[in-house]
Amino acid sequence: MSDLHSKFREAYPVLKEELLNDPAFEYDDASRQWVERMLDYNVPGGKLNRGLSVLDSYKLLKEGKELTDDELFLASALGWCIEWLQAYFLVLDDIMDNSVTRRGNPCWFRLPKVGIIAVNDGVILRNHVHRILKKHFREKPYYVELVDLFNEVEFQTASGQLIDLITTHEGEKDLSKYSLTVHRRIVQYKTAYYSFYLSVACALLMSGENLDNHVNVKNILVEMGVYFQVQDDYLDCFGAPEVTGKIGTDIEDFKCSWLVVKALEHCNEEQKKLLYENYGKADAACISKVKELYKTLDIQGAFEEYERESYEKLTKSIEAHPSKAVQAVLKSFLAKIYKRQK
Amino acid sequence: MSDLHSKFREAYPVLKEELLNDPAFEYDDASRQWVERMLDYNVPGGKLNRGLSVLDSYKLLKEGKELTDDELFLASALGWCIEWLQAYFLVLDDIMDNSVTRRGNPCWFRLPKVGIIAVNDGVILRNHVHRILKKHFREKPYYVELVDLFNEVEFQTASGQLIDLITTHEGEKDLSKYSLTVHRRIVQYKTAYYSFYLSVACALLMSGENLDNHVNVKNILVEMGVYFQVQDDYLDCFGAPEVTGKIGTDIEDFKCSWLVVKALEHCNEEQKKLLYENYGKADAACISKVKELYKTLDIQGAFEEYERESYEKLTKSIEAHPSKAVQAVLKSFLAKIYKRQK
Repeated sequence: MSDLHSKFREAYPVLKEELLNDPAFEYDDASRQWVERMLDYNVPGGKLNRGLSVLDSYKLLKEGKELTDDELFLASALGWCIEWLQAYFLVLDDIMDNSVTRRGNPCWFRLPKVGIIAVNDGVILRNHVHRILKKHFREKPYYVELVDLFNEVEFQTASGQLIDLITTHEGEKDLSKYSLTVHRRIVQYKTAYYSFYLSVACALLMSGENLDNHVNVKNILVEMGVYFQVQDDYLDCFGAPEVTGKIGTDIEDFKCSWLVVKALEHCNEEQKKLLYENYGKADAACISKVKELYKTLDIQGAFEEYERESYEKLTKSIEAHPSKAVQAVLKSFLAKIYKRQK
Repeated sequence: MSDLHSKFREAYPVLKEELLNDPAFEYDDASRQWVERMLDYNVPGGKLNRGLSVLDSYKLLKEGKELTDDELFLASALGWCIEWLQAYFLVLDDIMDNSVTRRGNPCWFRLPKVGIIAVNDGVILRNHVHRILKKHFREKPYYVELVDLFNEVEFQTASGQLIDLITTHEGEKDLSKYSLTVHRRIVQYKTAYYSFYLSVACALLMSGENLDNHVNVKNILVEMGVYFQVQDDYLDCFGAPEVTGKIGTDIEDFKCSWLVVKALEHCNEEQKKLLYENYGKADAACISKVKELYKTLDIQGAFEEYERESYEKLTKSIEAHPSKAVQAVLKSFLAKIYKRQK
């Protein structure tokens, strides 16, 4: 693990200790233990890509200059804020999707002692973001922009989750609602802003940049986020479980996946009928009928074409950017995800 | 309805329209309709005391000077932020408490079309607070203090909800956990900050005050909040349903009520046994045994004494405050709740 990444990991216990001794609330032993257990279970267990990207991006923006310990800690703290924000979304999404496992463990709300209290734990996670920002950034010239940024991205993510929930809502399953436009709006709001834009925006603010001058960077990162989610939809069906580490359930879950949207675009009346009859059903026979149709319609070919085009488009727009440092940041993101198998 | 209060109500549709046309998210018809319905169902239906208090307090701080239309709207907007914040807490609390009705209607999550999506609706409500603050207060000198204030109060409320949930947690019901200290901590954090301190703090910020100079005001309002909740606990058992408009369920719900805490303080071994055996059970016989014990121990007398003492203590500390205007604000709060029957 690179030195940068170990520095990032070292910041977690520090931030956790600060939160467990937050003067704004008098913890007793029971509540302190509860919160510590909840944090350890939900915050550090993922790949940490979003959090690490703040450090990586900040270093690239400094064009190789050595980072001071203070800069390293602050960039790590912002990275962890994104991980805390994601933990908040995941804890609540798992409740709403009635999921069973997350990162190979039972979802937090599935633990017998937890249950529906997980809703409030999600709220606590969200509040920790602002406790961390206030403690470490209150005196920075970019504090207001930082707080507004986290609030706006949270709002966009929750709005994306809303359209996802009302379009995939149980009981009123209607494939005709699904289109590339719908798919794009869900993905853009639910995933792209917090997974791609937020970490770079944090790094830009720390570097003294004004985000209003970087709308272009935002658009490129949102495009990358959409491309990333299309890959996710693809791997859910065609990925190798031994590589991805998960078995996809988008078809039975009636997800507005890029694959079904593409299938709807290319299918004839008869194939459409087959989709309507078999999509969103847990029955194994229905699922394989849908997968066969994907093969018949060569959705995999359509994906490869999409991947190639997205890569070219993104590279073009990145190379059009005036700053080499910003180009480096965007290219490192693209390199991390291009043709990923997991 | 006073002119001030009608001005307050007029602000709701304005704020709602702004939110439904928020440029940070592209609504489609379905999502716009969903959010509008969700807001109308959950935000304006209560007594609006917290929201109105911002206007009332601000007017008192201006010592009778006429408020401009701009001041009226801004104070109303802050009042509505508190109502939005409360709607967020109530929507999520009802899910966690598995409640049936709220303000005489089914809880939002009980509506067939809604269900668990209500979790995300709660998150949306919370995010609206910061959308409103950003739109109308971004350029104010007190914007940062305002955002920090709402974030800190939200954190304290969620922390209060946490200790309430883990102490009253189903399956591990243990009366010996309950004490005045526990009761006070739950009430202070879960209710007092957002219900009493927040509206005055908003009015003070609008008046150009620095909240660090008003720790004393905060402490008085937190004390008032505790007193208010003790009244609530009392009315839950001894209030007249035709006046309060609700039938209490604290006994069967195993709530850490001021009444049971007082009973535990005063009872002998045998009465303690009775409490342990009957508290927190839905059975009508158990409930009336508990109520009889409350009568035997004259908990009503203990409450009247508590009410008298609190009133005197609060009045003393209010009159010790240097500013007559601030005194007026605090006295109007106390007058609203002293000896309330609902």
